[in-house]
Amino acid sequence: MKNILIIGCGLIGSSLLRAIEKKKISKNVFVYEKSKKNILKIKKLKLPCVIISDFKNIVPKVDMIIFCTPMSEYEKIILRINKYLKPNIIITDVGSSKESSLKLLKEKLKKDISWTSSHPITGSEVSGPEFGDSNLFYKKWCILIKEKNSNKKHLIILSKFWKKIGSKIVIMNSKKHDSIFSITSHLPHLIAYNLVKTATDFEKKKKYALIKFSAGGLRDFSRIAASNEIMWRDIFFNNQSNIIKVIDLFIQNLKAFKKDIEYKNNKSIIRKLVETKKVRKKIIKLKQDINKPDFGRN
Amino acid sequence: MKNILIIGCGLIGSSLLRAIEKKKISKNVFVYEKSKKNILKIKKLKLPCVIISDFKNIVPKVDMIIFCTPMSEYEKIILRINKYLKPNIIITDVGSSKESSLKLLKEKLKKDISWTSSHPITGSEVSGPEFGDSNLFYKKWCILIKEKNSNKKHLIILSKFWKKIGSKIVIMNSKKHDSIFSITSHLPHLIAYNLVKTATDFEKKKKYALIKFSAGGLRDFSRIAASNEIMWRDIFFNNQSNIIKVIDLFIQNLKAFKKDIEYKNNKSIIRKLVETKKVRKKIIKLKQDINKPDFGRN
Repeated sequence: MKNILIIGCGLIGSSLLRAIEKKKISKNVFVYEKSKKNILKIKKLKLPCVIISDFKNIVPKVDMIIFCTPMSEYEKIILRINKYLKPNIIITDVGSSKESSLKLLKEKLKKDISWTSSHPITGSEVSGPEFGDSNLFYKKWCILIKEKNSNKKHLIILSKFWKKIGSKIVIMNSKKHDSIFSITSHLPHLIAYNLVKTATDFEKKKKYALIKFSAGGLRDFSRIAASNEIMWRDIFFNNQSNIIKVIDLFIQNLKAFKKDIEYKNNKSIIRKLVETKKVRKKIIKLKQDINKPDFGRN
Repeated sequence: MKNILIIGCGLIGSSLLRAIEKKKISKNVFVYEKSKKNILKIKKLKLPCVIISDFKNIVPKVDMIIFCTPMSEYEKIILRINKYLKPNIIITDVGSSKESSLKLLKEKLKKDISWTSSHPITGSEVSGPEFGDSNLFYKKWCILIKEKNSNKKHLIILSKFWKKIGSKIVIMNSKKHDSIFSITSHLPHLIAYNLVKTATDFEKKKKYALIKFSAGGLRDFSRIAASNEIMWRDIFFNNQSNIIKVIDLFIQNLKAFKKDIEYKNNKSIIRKLVETKKVRKKIIKLKQDINKPDFGRN
């Protein structure tokens, strides 16, 4: 490719920028970034890109646009770039939920322009271009969304793009995507936020300091619950119906656990605790984590 | 000290054994271990101890006994060693909940024998003597339980003991201990187990493989939910009333979160997500975790 435009240059955007340069995928990379703080960081880090402040002159020239902003920014930006989009331009995003943004695109994106959605399963609790890493996508899944009306040619090009920067590709529709990630990612984050909130409420109520004893479990949740609030609000709102379903399932199971504890139901609780251990083995076998015990990070 | 007896030589017991040797705290360390598999491991690892199969000849000789078994084993062992206990023997344990085991001790332990409870805030999801580490207690909190009838002399000796192997000491009563750890440790583990169970149920129901996409959050919970089932059943049952209270608080908060998502209550959800981020900063400031972003363990 000759020209790629990255819109939003935080952790994911700046990692893509670094990976594109490392793999020599595009001659030029343009970056549009709203935050002045991030622009200063990008300049200080001398990231290999041209920072643009206006779409008018650049959008007509680019081969591919990658949206790396929070999903709530999509509409505003689409309405600004629509008139500059030439046919055949490849557009993708890296958002964590898909059905509702595809619905929005259908309404707002200029006719005859294709949008082919991506979701790289990677990230961290930190935000900002200073944390970006060209290896962020290496050996990680990248989901590509295929619907009835998807542009097959763009799907092939994007598939090659993600593979080139190290990702493993899976193709599925937006409905299945949103269902899977409601349970493997969105609910875990919500639960982590909720646990930290519950601990804070508890501390206030009891009036004794307890956060300092968080090494016994709470600590690990607090890391997950330190993720970017705008990004996660957007995910929770966009994947609303799936998330509500899994919250209900979670509460139902938690109430059953509570009953086991209340009635000291040995057989039932042991069965549950043993079953979840098996999942851990599966996760390690699937290389989603390493088989190395964790004693806390010192 | 001349002789220490460790009852139960898994992760914690074998770490204590190693730390006692490293710091030259006792001339001899005796180990009582029920599991034949663990005994074989201890022998193979050549851990610096004498393995005993009977209490009769050893218990009268030892200065200190440390219980490192699951809490549900305490009663059986106490009834077996009672008659061999000489006055002034120091007895402690490393169990994760305190009120109910102190109640049991009051009923079952021979009169005039003191039991001074400890709780080192450390561990891992793995079990067994092969994972033990002499540094497991280094810079970690160790809670010592002080009640009205506590043996002050033993408290001082135990305090010195834990400090010598690197721990930082906090003294509190069993009621406060069980309340604090119900929220900082017991609930987080229960939630992790429940999340993994919910994901497994979901997978069965939906009939598509999703565990392989667990890198987005579920993975980290699965590690916590791989902890020893006997130990955790004992904790859940022993700290029953506190845990039930925090489950209720957790569900109440989760329902409020669900409402925020249902009604897209932007202000309320952002406030929650920002507040939890502050807790993370506090945890890092309190040196309960390091300030290093986590990108998954590869």
